[in-house]
Amino acid sequence: MIYSFKNDYSEGAHPDILKALTETNLIQAEGYGLDCHTRSAANAIRELAEAPDADVHLISGGTQTNLIAISSFLRPHEACIAATSGHIAVHEAGAIEATGHKLLCVDTPDGKLTPDLIAPVLSQHHFEHMVKPKLVYISNATELGTVYTLAEMKALYTFCQANHLLLYADGARLGAAIMSKASGLSLKDMYRFTDAFFIGGTKNGALLGEALVIKNCDVKAEYRYLIKQRGALLAKGWILGIQFKTLFTDNLFFDLAAHANGMARRLALELEQAGCTFLIDSPTNQIFPVMENRVIQVLSEQFSFYTWSTVDENLSAVRLITSWATSEGAVRNFLDAYRKASGK
Amino acid sequence: MIYSFKNDYSEGAHPDILKALTETNLIQAEGYGLDCHTRSAANAIRELAEAPDADVHLISGGTQTNLIAISSFLRPHEACIAATSGHIAVHEAGAIEATGHKLLCVDTPDGKLTPDLIAPVLSQHHFEHMVKPKLVYISNATELGTVYTLAEMKALYTFCQANHLLLYADGARLGAAIMSKASGLSLKDMYRFTDAFFIGGTKNGALLGEALVIKNCDVKAEYRYLIKQRGALLAKGWILGIQFKTLFTDNLFFDLAAHANGMARRLALELEQAGCTFLIDSPTNQIFPVMENRVIQVLSEQFSFYTWSTVDENLSAVRLITSWATSEGAVRNFLDAYRKASGK
Amino acid sequence: MIYSFKNDYSEGAHPDILKALTETNLIQAEGYGLDCHTRSAANAIRELAEAPDADVHLISGGTQTNLIAISSFLRPHEACIAATSGHIAVHEAGAIEATGHKLLCVDTPDGKLTPDLIAPVLSQHHFEHMVKPKLVYISNATELGTVYTLAEMKALYTFCQANHLLLYADGARLGAAIMSKASGLSLKDMYRFTDAFFIGGTKNGALLGEALVIKNCDVKAEYRYLIKQRGALLAKGWILGIQFKTLFTDNLFFDLAAHANGMARRLALELEQAGCTFLIDSPTNQIFPVMENRVIQVLSEQFSFYTWSTVDENLSAVRLITSWATSEGAVRNFLDAYRKASGK
Amino acid sequence: MIYSFKNDYSEGAHPDILKALTETNLIQAEGYGLDCHTRSAANAIRELAEAPDADVHLISGGTQTNLIAISSFLRPHEACIAATSGHIAVHEAGAIEATGHKLLCVDTPDGKLTPDLIAPVLSQHHFEHMVKPKLVYISNATELGTVYTLAEMKALYTFCQANHLLLYADGARLGAAIMSKASGLSLKDMYRFTDAFFIGGTKNGALLGEALVIKNCDVKAEYRYLIKQRGALLAKGWILGIQFKTLFTDNLFFDLAAHANGMARRLALELEQAGCTFLIDSPTNQIFPVMENRVIQVLSEQFSFYTWSTVDENLSAVRLITSWATSEGAVRNFLDAYRKASGK
Repeated sequence: MIYSFKNDYSEGAHPDILKALTETNLIQAEGYGLDCHTRSAANAIRELAEAPDADVHLISGGTQTNLIAISSFLRPHEACIAATSGHIAVHEAGAIEATGHKLLCVDTPDGKLTPDLIAPVLSQHHFEHMVKPKLVYISNATELGTVYTLAEMKALYTFCQANHLLLYADGARLGAAIMSKASGLSLKDMYRFTDAFFIGGTKNGALLGEALVIKNCDVKAEYRYLIKQRGALLAKGWILGIQFKTLFTDNLFFDLAAHANGMARRLALELEQAGCTFLIDSPTNQIFPVMENRVIQVLSEQFSFYTWSTVDENLSAVRLITSWATSEGAVRNFLDAYRKASGK
Repeated sequence: MIYSFKNDYSEGAHPDILKALTETNLIQAEGYGLDCHTRSAANAIRELAEAPDADVHLISGGTQTNLIAISSFLRPHEACIAATSGHIAVHEAGAIEATGHKLLCVDTPDGKLTPDLIAPVLSQHHFEHMVKPKLVYISNATELGTVYTLAEMKALYTFCQANHLLLYADGARLGAAIMSKASGLSLKDMYRFTDAFFIGGTKNGALLGEALVIKNCDVKAEYRYLIKQRGALLAKGWILGIQFKTLFTDNLFFDLAAHANGMARRLALELEQAGCTFLIDSPTNQIFPVMENRVIQVLSEQFSFYTWSTVDENLSAVRLITSWATSEGAVRNFLDAYRKASGK
Repeated sequence: MIYSFKNDYSEGAHPDILKALTETNLIQAEGYGLDCHTRSAANAIRELAEAPDADVHLISGGTQTNLIAISSFLRPHEACIAATSGHIAVHEAGAIEATGHKLLCVDTPDGKLTPDLIAPVLSQHHFEHMVKPKLVYISNATELGTVYTLAEMKALYTFCQANHLLLYADGARLGAAIMSKASGLSLKDMYRFTDAFFIGGTKNGALLGEALVIKNCDVKAEYRYLIKQRGALLAKGWILGIQFKTLFTDNLFFDLAAHANGMARRLALELEQAGCTFLIDSPTNQIFPVMENRVIQVLSEQFSFYTWSTVDENLSAVRLITSWATSEGAVRNFLDAYRKASGK
Repeated sequence: MIYSFKNDYSEGAHPDILKALTETNLIQAEGYGLDCHTRSAANAIRELAEAPDADVHLISGGTQTNLIAISSFLRPHEACIAATSGHIAVHEAGAIEATGHKLLCVDTPDGKLTPDLIAPVLSQHHFEHMVKPKLVYISNATELGTVYTLAEMKALYTFCQANHLLLYADGARLGAAIMSKASGLSLKDMYRFTDAFFIGGTKNGALLGEALVIKNCDVKAEYRYLIKQRGALLAKGWILGIQFKTLFTDNLFFDLAAHANGMARRLALELEQAGCTFLIDSPTNQIFPVMENRVIQVLSEQFSFYTWSTVDENLSAVRLITSWATSEGAVRNFLDAYRKASGK
């Protein structure tokens, strides 16, 4: 089978997680996330985020988490501002609109939103024949692998506060963002500078699971009803609890993300040395090198990855994603194959 | 910790499932259910159900499966007929209504629907100021542990066909229903006599997962869009595939259900010998013995279970559920405790 | 054409309303209800209801008003308690559920809700696997022509307040309720003892239009957005304003309702003298006399009305509705025809 | 009061309509659009459109018509393609998204869609993580006053047919489009080259009302349920029937639109002679002259109109709308005022 750099969810769970699941497997636990493992996981997150008052809910997947959060934070006429490239805008099959809310999309080359990009949306939506912008959705890391710096997060949150907007962050790849040197953000900063965000487990070593962290008290109430109503309250909720407890034991979550980032970094550096340019400068675990189409053709016989966009007649950008499970050998093989195919 | 008879999802997965997950853990797989394990699981189900044309979709939980199925099968003005005690009517936090569809509920003491119970709903809903009944939702086994016989399923489906109604079965406990001697139903019969149904994994030995089986071609189209839009397309979809593949290897699914039914049978028989009556005659893995309140009080210090309903001043019915993981020892302990507390 | 007692919306508008529409027809007005007529109408209602802080919104029809109000008052998981015979439960084609909210229906022979009927619904819905009851919907007059007394309204509102429930009244026939001697309620009382209610124009002399009156400040915000989003903000909103201004000038609204009640009263009294019994004792403009089927057959050749329900083999109840436009002649003709057909 | 060129719904109804409403006012009619006037109106439309098989439904307003049509034509995962300037995209407060469907918006300077503009949307949406484009929404006339030619409509419909897309036209200003010389379209052409469209009454001489005309048999079924569920089935539906019957008697509908267009034409020609340029070349009843800000300031003290967009530091475009009721005197006054203010 050919090796895949298509995404960061091609392998199962980190062995520590499987071990924990196996060890507790036959011990009875309370259903629906009311168990001790889920409590431990939530406490670990609260501690790391210095967020004693946070509500933490474990949910199976990212789209599910986004649709529950956004639909529960908004009244019917309120809308969500997002980057045109945002996951909810493109790759969730209209899940947010299916809950009744419009997305107001803003073009941004690097996938990041700023006060300057959001302000015009506010001024354009000024009366009751239009939706009312109420929530800003960002992804960190973004869908283009870029990250928000501490200063950027602070500026965005300050702007949102001043404009009565909620700030919500999709953290499907939050581990990669935090461990990126470009970011300088901690879990604590994410908590300080958002109203709510989620911590992605699926793409960082869990079988499945995202941890939604809510700070804003106005939107916390009766949250388990909202999760249940969307079909997202797992009967055996503790299998999420055990996973997050494991990820937040002995720094595992951060180590896994650092590994993924490191593998991408190595790929990027050596591809650059071999003459590649990049569509965008990404400091996390997804990179977008530009290659000749004939090279891409050759590589795609040995490796699986997405061709992202056309650059010109001969060149395209591909997307390579590394994960907690990507081995140095696989990286080496890819680089060798690239050099061979490109003759560099 | 006190032993729980509260439900059939207090333990993790059958060891064979954990083993299969562990063995495949680091082998890369295609995302979103497009992997070989999911294909194998679907094929196994198609074979057992003698349903070569069935569409099979693996989804995390029962409420999720119900809301995706029902909302996708209906146009906006169409409604769903269900028993007043039906899971969607009571215990899904309004998940079906949240997709826009009304439930038309029918009182039925044993949790089962019949043509005679449904016919009046049809005649009462006859014009455009009312919703249009279009789908019949049943649970098999029901929320009261009862099951449909082959003849009952056939009669219901024939009635539905004649009245342009879709018949959809919630099979969260389908294993228990099929393995109940009262039923005489096979997976193949469920396929023949419904438009769609699901096979519950969560309550029969899986970590999570339900298998939605669609027969009716009118409602099959573009189903993966619908699953994705509700946030139910798991990135690591193969973890559902591996589980169902394992359950449908070497008869495991049926053996686990038979075990659960057997444990409940033993509980019921010995409680009856000890003088208990029952709220309802259930042939599956949930039973509803009637006990003195003071006995319930004593037992609840050693075991966890639901007190279901009040019978009279001194008596209440409790619900005891057994599972694939319930041990004979636990059953014996409960019976001993009952005899001691009741003095019988 | 045969004369209709089928409903109270078989004729157009009271002549004063048509006159007012005609007189202002070519005078330009601001669109979308921001005109002076709408303001006058709202002020007239605020004055009559002694409700200086009320928000008043004019909306085309009752179903529309109900769905906007209820969906905007509730969060996604919250549900609405209603009588099984309530208009939203039976005759709005699932409009409330289409906005995502479950109805919890309570059987009540006279169409009225009481604290005693509501309390069990609250105790049955106690955790997050069920919807959360949050709003009580009543109709006054009810769908059976009955009315709430002042004491009943007060008791209901007090109970709702104590239980954190919103009380919302469908007043499609509020005029008839207020002018019923059985009620003793004024517009002011309706305001005092609900969180919101609407005043029906369509069934009391307007071409179309209902006036939604909101007291509770928690649910007032940005209401015009919510009306617009449901397609209910009429471009020429002043045609509603003019109608309600006219209705609330010189007591017209109340006089029209009194007339309708009076015509029904006369029908009822004389039918009773002629030996009729009644399905229910209604003091408003709809009555439910029980007649022999063969009499109904004869009458239905000369008059249009609904046969409401079967009483026994020979008897059925019919529904007769009078309106602001029902003439004494029509009433006399019906009574003559009844006496002739029944031989009494 | 200052004269308004803000919109085409500042006056009531054409006097013939008021006369017809008055004459029939006390004649009893069947409720909910099942009356003879509504049938006559529908027949008149079917005849004019040469559409014997068309379903015709009369609905109060445009947003309501759009949300009912679009939500009923689509399955949950299907999306609607629209111009970025489309009414549903900007000025309906998210009404379409509130029914669960995403809009895919396309930038187009003149508000019109073409196959070339739509094709990329189709190719970008190719798998189940994205919505599926299924319906194309156009406005004719557009929100910028432009119109589709016969050839353009035919090309668009042919493209939609070939790509399994429904074509739906918002005809809030269809009269103006048809009577525009630039268009060359008839009602019959609109029927031939769409799956469904509506004919606007509100903006062309009615008090309220739009006539939805459905050709495509796949989306016709049980339409009255869908109208009722959205709260749009008026009790006194015949007041819409009478209005459309009147509009389609003696060519009134077309004469009114021609008058509105003529008044706009005169405004445009004389403003051009006085040196105005135009933001866009509109052949219908809305025009967008560019004026000096100081002139706009002076005019706005005597007339009411929207300032549409900023052109440069000194210049802005305004929007002037004429209607069936705009008098030559008003046009003359505006032109005089313009000449005086601009010194031209």
